Amino acid sequence: MFPTRLKETANLIETHLHSVMAPLGDLPVIDAMRYAASGGKRLRAFLVLESARLHGVSQDYAIWPAGAIEMIHAYSLVHDDLPCMDDDDLRRGLPTVHVKWDETTAVLAGDALQTLGFESVSRPECHPDPLVRADLTATLASAAGAQGMVLGQALDIAAESAPLPLTLDEITHLQAGKTGALIAWSATAGAIMAHADTTPLLRYATDLGLAFQIADDILDVEGDAATVGKAVGKDADAGKATFVSLLGLDGAKARARDLVADACDALSPYGDDADTLREAARFVISRDS
Amino acid sequence: MFPTRLKETANLIETHLHSVMAPLGDLPVIDAMRYAASGGKRLRAFLVLESARLHGVSQDYAIWPAGAIEMIHAYSLVHDDLPCMDDDDLRRGLPTVHVKWDETTAVLAGDALQTLGFESVSRPECHPDPLVRADLTATLASAAGAQGMVLGQALDIAAESAPLPLTLDEITHLQAGKTGALIAWSATAGAIMAHADTTPLLRYATDLGLAFQIADDILDVEGDAATVGKAVGKDADAGKATFVSLLGLDGAKARARDLVADACDALSPYGDDADTLREAARFVISRDS
Repeated sequence: MFPTRLKETANLIETHLHSVMAPLGDLPVIDAMRYAASGGKRLRAFLVLESARLHGVSQDYAIWPAGAIEMIHAYSLVHDDLPCMDDDDLRRGLPTVHVKWDETTAVLAGDALQTLGFESVSRPECHPDPLVRADLTATLASAAGAQGMVLGQALDIAAESAPLPLTLDEITHLQAGKTGALIAWSATAGAIMAHADTTPLLRYATDLGLAFQIADDILDVEGDAATVGKAVGKDADAGKATFVSLLGLDGAKARARDLVADACDALSPYGDDADTLREAARFVISRDS
Repeated sequence: MFPTRLKETANLIETHLHSVMAPLGDLPVIDAMRYAASGGKRLRAFLVLESARLHGVSQDYAIWPAGAIEMIHAYSLVHDDLPCMDDDDLRRGLPTVHVKWDETTAVLAGDALQTLGFESVSRPECHPDPLVRADLTATLASAAGAQGMVLGQALDIAAESAPLPLTLDEITHLQAGKTGALIAWSATAGAIMAHADTTPLLRYATDLGLAFQIADDILDVEGDAATVGKAVGKDADAGKATFVSLLGLDGAKARARDLVADACDALSPYGDDADTLREAARFVISRDS
């Protein structure tokens, strides 16, 4: 069920992003935006579409926030990969934007992908109720900004020059921003669109986001670059604190399993209808890329 | 009248931005955001507040889009100044963000300023009518994105490696994006907030934006760095086509004066009430920084 849904989501998103970006022409910056926004697992878009389905929100509307979160995610990866940030040459098994084009193009393509993400949730096609559009925009900005994703990135950078490795609490706080905030927004987007209570999905997403990051740290140790699609072993080489360095490999795996169990429990108000989301949570800690 | 209003606007905006950014804490990225968003003429914020006043929109609401456009403008300057872009060390007479901090901080601070700009126009404090918030967000994204400001920047970069200098039409198109789009949004924001016709203010702003850029090109030739607050003579040194290189110094000055006259005429539906905006247009071509 879940793998099929994820594949369907990926196809829907590719088509949607293609049509949204078609009118933008073919300057190198625009081509770089298309390149950066293509591929990937589309887990965030899946969470948006699935939470919308749970609340009876039409997929014709939900595809807009689903596309928006993938654009915001793509922008963050393009800027993260820059030489002055993580300096990565490989992303999803392909050259990163600044390698394929140049740094100038990467900065601008990332900037414009962020803008297009916000445009996507504010335009009338996204939802006929302007309150939904304004709420989606405000919550997305909150998740992506200096109290969400960028905060996590800033803490990550600050940690590199800190005298001591991060503690478990500090790394949990950092990851709640860096990867958790966008995942939480994705999973709650459907409830926001239906003016419904976001609490159960927020609990689900908070546990899921942390499990996702622990799984990433495990992949950085156990995965091989060809399968993962990006460089591995970088954290250990850099002497960075990770969930694996703090909990051990077995401890990290156990913690991820516990978090997934909690995430699934949080969905009890939705009954069996949320089983695909539960499958998604289990997938997150069993993936190999 | 206009100099007083511009000074008042600057004070209002400093106070507003300070209060919006106060809860964000004091990581280097946040300090860099505050640094980048402070100072400047605040012409865009003035246009927002003045167009709001013309349409009877409360300043308590209009301060939000006024602050938002200054954040978006500040983000674009921080990224523009990066070594991989214009590589400028000086902005408003002070070290640029990547010089004072580093490139990593400059990329992230710019990113987060863009996000905070969109958050500012979507949060409930900006306006009680969610349609106003959604419209402000969608139009701001359109002005800032790959069909507005970023398009202009991309065309500017493409021009650097083009075999021939740009023509007058090409440079006009480029500047309509690079500087014109945000100025047009600023001047029409008040009409958008009142659900009023944006045509007169859009005509005004289109002429004003072009006059502003011509004045910038003149300053690049005639100004001195200490007064202008940034490096001058760069365009001529780089052999770039500018309005001055294409029209000559006298021709460029005449064109700017004609545009200001047209901009003032466009405001006729507002009568004398728009005299401060007319003064602003005259100021734009007489400024020395």
